[in-house]
Amino acid sequence: MTLSRTAATFAPPVMEARRWVEGIAFPSDRPLINVSQAAPVDPPPLALRQAMAEFAVREDSAHLYGPVLGNDDLRAELAAQISSHYAAQVDAPRIAITSGCNQAFSAVISAITGEADEVILPTPWYFNHKMWLDMAGVQSVDLPTGDDLLPDPERARGLITDKTRAIALVTPNNPGGVEYPAELVRAFYNLARETGIRLIVDETYRDFDSRSGPPHDLFQQPGWDETLIHLYSFSKAYRLTGHRVGAIATSPALLAEVEKFLDTVAICPGQIGQFAALWGMQNLSQWLAGERDEILDRRAAIAEGMPALEARGWRLLGLGAYFAYLEHPFDMPSDELARRLVKEAGVLLLPGTMFMPDHDPAGKRQVRIAFANLDRAGLGQLFDRLQDLPF
Amino acid sequence: MTLSRTAATFAPPVMEARRWVEGIAFPSDRPLINVSQAAPVDPPPLALRQAMAEFAVREDSAHLYGPVLGNDDLRAELAAQISSHYAAQVDAPRIAITSGCNQAFSAVISAITGEADEVILPTPWYFNHKMWLDMAGVQSVDLPTGDDLLPDPERARGLITDKTRAIALVTPNNPGGVEYPAELVRAFYNLARETGIRLIVDETYRDFDSRSGPPHDLFQQPGWDETLIHLYSFSKAYRLTGHRVGAIATSPALLAEVEKFLDTVAICPGQIGQFAALWGMQNLSQWLAGERDEILDRRAAIAEGMPALEARGWRLLGLGAYFAYLEHPFDMPSDELARRLVKEAGVLLLPGTMFMPDHDPAGKRQVRIAFANLDRAGLGQLFDRLQDLPF
Repeated sequence: MTLSRTAATFAPPVMEARRWVEGIAFPSDRPLINVSQAAPVDPPPLALRQAMAEFAVREDSAHLYGPVLGNDDLRAELAAQISSHYAAQVDAPRIAITSGCNQAFSAVISAITGEADEVILPTPWYFNHKMWLDMAGVQSVDLPTGDDLLPDPERARGLITDKTRAIALVTPNNPGGVEYPAELVRAFYNLARETGIRLIVDETYRDFDSRSGPPHDLFQQPGWDETLIHLYSFSKAYRLTGHRVGAIATSPALLAEVEKFLDTVAICPGQIGQFAALWGMQNLSQWLAGERDEILDRRAAIAEGMPALEARGWRLLGLGAYFAYLEHPFDMPSDELARRLVKEAGVLLLPGTMFMPDHDPAGKRQVRIAFANLDRAGLGQLFDRLQDLPF
Repeated sequence: MTLSRTAATFAPPVMEARRWVEGIAFPSDRPLINVSQAAPVDPPPLALRQAMAEFAVREDSAHLYGPVLGNDDLRAELAAQISSHYAAQVDAPRIAITSGCNQAFSAVISAITGEADEVILPTPWYFNHKMWLDMAGVQSVDLPTGDDLLPDPERARGLITDKTRAIALVTPNNPGGVEYPAELVRAFYNLARETGIRLIVDETYRDFDSRSGPPHDLFQQPGWDETLIHLYSFSKAYRLTGHRVGAIATSPALLAEVEKFLDTVAICPGQIGQFAALWGMQNLSQWLAGERDEILDRRAAIAEGMPALEARGWRLLGLGAYFAYLEHPFDMPSDELARRLVKEAGVLLLPGTMFMPDHDPAGKRQVRIAFANLDRAGLGQLFDRLQDLPF
């Protein structure tokens, strides 16, 4: 008997981590520090919430099916924003709106791969990418990164076979935090173009990149949409995680294939979420700039706190987006460490084993800290607890 | 080179039908009658819209990720309503909330099938079911129905092989409209149980069933959740199509598999839609009863109008839910007829070819009318136009 699609993959890591804290009482003077999920815990600004409320009451379209590939106004606005962000010319027919960025990845993989095809993923990977490849019957081919967490295009070249359909990058990286240099992204694009495969670039965290100016020049390349599949999320920028709005930028021909998947798995993205994403892009650019400053300040706080941890044997491998990716000094695998941290330090983080294939020992030495929800005071407490572990 | 998943199936029929009307100007005294999509065109009642608006402004959780399988309160309320509706005892751990009922189907198929497995679908099928099976690499095995559109369990028995994982029914049926008798549904359940496969029953239109009392007794069977996978949608009952909320009822073990798919394709259902579904169940039962009365009255209007159409050679094959399923009298395939009806009669309906495999000639003789959005006056105009066709 064949295994089912879902039996081919593992349980959702974030849900598993939630179960680790179930039934544990944390003292009120020492509450749980949860750095497991990369999600804002505050709602969007009041003005956006009020605009959503108005929309729900006044606009019939807020409650009706829309086009499978998303509303025209949102597609057009995102096309304009991408054009501006990447100093390029991208038009609305090259944009699709999805119910979140995970769905964007699932849809494009289904549009470009068949059973037993291959997709190259740098490790550590984003686990939902790995899960979807498993469920889609696609062989994920590991591209291990070194201590700098940057994938090597020449090493990737050696992994390409006649079954390879794509290389999937995440920059700024989840879980690693690193911002891929523009030249590196370009080298992967050139490799993909040359070998006739696609380059998927998930830029969920692009709004929190520490660099100014376009993070890469792929959208400026003639015929970019034949090679590049760009993924984006509105969840982090405008705090819309509960509304599920993401996006794809690629060729209209590929989006016609994506449309089949989205019609069958979603019919259309939620209307209120689409409205909120549009309103956010049109009204919250100043606010978002402030959000970015705050995230960059928290990132700086981590860098400042690292020497004390390094003195205890920790190493910082990557820092950026919402993440610090660390190597721990303990003589235990990271999944065991993560569970002990819950009970003995009141800290919930995700172990590197959740971002790495079982056969790669690096995952056992690594942990991811999703720091975006901790202010400087909270980060101070986190560092205090990690410095004073009872083991 | 392998075909991609999406290349294995056809383009979304509703989107294709929308393209048929693009660029056509309909006279203002004779506007397009659109009976192509099974969706309310009016928004939910004002009180629900206001409740959603309040929720968006006041509740932080409206904007944050929730559990992958849906919010506990909504799962519990639906469990209670299913228990009441089907005179059974169903608890919350056997319920999952999805981003619409299409997603519910996709998720359960991925949880029970692998590459080249088989699922039996009565024809005419609901096209998104067929599309997902194609994209999942599952062989859909046709179970043709006769003029009564009711599938025959003994004929189904003859189609079961060692690759068969499920039979998928839709009752009340889309596109056929027929309400499957309780004994028929039970016979399929017995067959599935006996042969160790699953019975999927999509009851998206259960709230508009013309019968009173439980439509079947499957939830009353001991160990029902080992065999039955029940699917439901909040879209029709509470006019929430634009919010994407559906549900699954089955075993907790299977829902743990479903959770992997939903985490990767959606992360969680939209929060405002979940809130609206809960509020609707708690506050709109009287209103929904009125909606059902109205749909049943429209259905009656179609039955009353049929003799005049029958005099012109049309036949009514099925009537119920939101649908009338008809056999047309013309010497042309239904997809050609559908396109001519747009131009020559100002009527947009879906041809039977969209619900049937190419090799089955029955689809060419049939059309689906999604009548829920037409009142008696509108239905009268539709019948007038169909009686006075210029061909």
